[in-house]
Amino acid sequence: MRFSLSATDGLARRGQLALPNGTVDTPAFMPVGTYGAVKTVTPEEVAACGAQIILGNTFHLMLRPGADIVRRLGGLHRFMHWTGPMLTDSGGFQVWSLTERRRLTEEGVEFQAPTDGSKVFLSPERAMEVQADLGADIQMVFDECTDFPATLDEARASMELSVRWAERSRQRFDALAGTDSGHALFGIVQGGMYPELRSASAAALKAMDFPGLAIGGLSVGEPESDRLAVLEHTVPLLPAERPRYLMGVGTPADIVKAVARGVDMFDCVMPTRNARNGHLFTSAGVVRIRNARYREDDRPLDASCSCYTCQHYSRAYLRHLHQARETLGARLNTLHNLHHYQQLMAGIRAAIEAKDFAGFAARELLRQEQGVADMQ
Amino acid sequence: MRFSLSATDGLARRGQLALPNGTVDTPAFMPVGTYGAVKTVTPEEVAACGAQIILGNTFHLMLRPGADIVRRLGGLHRFMHWTGPMLTDSGGFQVWSLTERRRLTEEGVEFQAPTDGSKVFLSPERAMEVQADLGADIQMVFDECTDFPATLDEARASMELSVRWAERSRQRFDALAGTDSGHALFGIVQGGMYPELRSASAAALKAMDFPGLAIGGLSVGEPESDRLAVLEHTVPLLPAERPRYLMGVGTPADIVKAVARGVDMFDCVMPTRNARNGHLFTSAGVVRIRNARYREDDRPLDASCSCYTCQHYSRAYLRHLHQARETLGARLNTLHNLHHYQQLMAGIRAAIEAKDFAGFAARELLRQEQGVADMQ
Repeated sequence: MRFSLSATDGLARRGQLALPNGTVDTPAFMPVGTYGAVKTVTPEEVAACGAQIILGNTFHLMLRPGADIVRRLGGLHRFMHWTGPMLTDSGGFQVWSLTERRRLTEEGVEFQAPTDGSKVFLSPERAMEVQADLGADIQMVFDECTDFPATLDEARASMELSVRWAERSRQRFDALAGTDSGHALFGIVQGGMYPELRSASAAALKAMDFPGLAIGGLSVGEPESDRLAVLEHTVPLLPAERPRYLMGVGTPADIVKAVARGVDMFDCVMPTRNARNGHLFTSAGVVRIRNARYREDDRPLDASCSCYTCQHYSRAYLRHLHQARETLGARLNTLHNLHHYQQLMAGIRAAIEAKDFAGFAARELLRQEQGVADMQ
Repeated sequence: MRFSLSATDGLARRGQLALPNGTVDTPAFMPVGTYGAVKTVTPEEVAACGAQIILGNTFHLMLRPGADIVRRLGGLHRFMHWTGPMLTDSGGFQVWSLTERRRLTEEGVEFQAPTDGSKVFLSPERAMEVQADLGADIQMVFDECTDFPATLDEARASMELSVRWAERSRQRFDALAGTDSGHALFGIVQGGMYPELRSASAAALKAMDFPGLAIGGLSVGEPESDRLAVLEHTVPLLPAERPRYLMGVGTPADIVKAVARGVDMFDCVMPTRNARNGHLFTSAGVVRIRNARYREDDRPLDASCSCYTCQHYSRAYLRHLHQARETLGARLNTLHNLHHYQQLMAGIRAAIEAKDFAGFAARELLRQEQGVADMQ
């Protein structure tokens, strides 16, 4: 993996991330392919939207169809027919957010599988083994997501466990991959909303020399001001020459604000999940397509959008498909939202290159706020 | 509308049907787009599978989004972005199969809408008005589907009502369209399983000079031998120079057998609905993709198939998507089944041209029977 910065504007960075399966322009947004599919769309369509890298979920794929099966079928790339760069998370966040009856020990975490109720064990070592089976270009250390809210003591204990797990992840990853595999393992900074814990986490992970670092434990219910404060505190602690990945964020506005604070990579289910719920991002704000006002609206969703959906279908048709629960609607909506997110990232990258990121960000945030007011 | 026959082989016919929005090679299979969408797939994908004409459902579209809305949005072609030929049914079959608390009178039928429980009235006149709003190339008379089983008296009364409704449909269609609109109205032969009633129905409809005739009231639960007997009796009663459409049929074997008896056009939800249920048609018979035997099966669904699904995905992946209820699976399955049906139709047409239809039919039926035995 090689990361290079070609331009900066304030704290915002324009870079390129060279990975075994291709090169990613940063700042980058990664669509989420939970079960080995970006829901409703093909890999060719994901790429046509402009995405250069996608994310796969270790937690889901180890439960269904099982990492061993994916490995025997040639790895996740071949299984799902995605030929570009890919990142897999470690499952830590999903264990925290999707399971019940968790039993957490120093060794790892045992939980009940939401798919069939069976007992499953994940540890740093196991998470690395599963990710090795999946074979993504970028893999993530197994961490513990800190609850929100958490006391200082709780957050410290959680962060320190994540640091020890990061070290174990690193050792198992190296043993599995060798150092020359070309695959990269990223560390994850935790520490909740406490700056001193974020500092300690970042310092410990820096010492482990990960080729990239993520910021975890955000978008867990905290106020935006807390999230931005954590970002402003944490990003400067990360190595400037390595990629910075803010996990699980967020809305277009969230992304613009995080890029302004020096973040290079994002992932979120929002464009895809919201699409299926009829919540559509446009250049004029959010359109909730089920709204009766769109019943006979012959206009495209977004007149300034060049996606397949906006080129060929009306809001009235999209509303009809949504009301009739036709899955073609979820698909057309997904194509649009993914395209919208990737256009946003392209705009961000161009603005940084043109040294106009502050202006771009101000216009984008203003337009989003006004648009929402106009359309709802 | 112009219909011309370019070859025949026994009773099987190879023709071309020229319609306002394009030309259809017959024998033809029409994928069903119930709610203004062939479920899960785009019009471009439907066309890429080889389909030249699709079917829209009057019953569903009048309930959702409403025919008046479709008309104001430019008609069904524009609404759903399908530019080729299209046929709409009249709603008669759906009233019969999908509604409860029907009240049937000479005037028409009142029923409870399955969408919202409201009372809806359909008559020959109303069915023509709705279809005029939708604007398909071929429209169908409003008929009453005869119950199965039915006594001779019941079947006669039902057939005679359908004949009177056909006359009223014709009058309203002509008044709405003018005779030079280029759109065509087809009659529907009814009469249940009684040859003498089929004869009477066909004679009455022939006298009304419809440009095409359909055979309705089959695939309603009757044994295959009854269906084939009705076909063998009825088809020779239809004008040789006009297209013959067998409504709602069927499996690949059903289609081959009906072509052998002189049928030119088909529609059925089977390729699309079965796809969503993981029931896949292949050159070696049916694959039920949920079967555990496919869990690690790295082969394409059908090695001899050139569809997008078979070119890029394994049975194991399709099984995984099915088990995980990913709608991409329903979509990939639909693409395959539609392609399979259209390849069957292309094979049928080529065999008729080559005067080899009997051989083709024998090989196809044998292969399907053997394949089912092999794979289940």
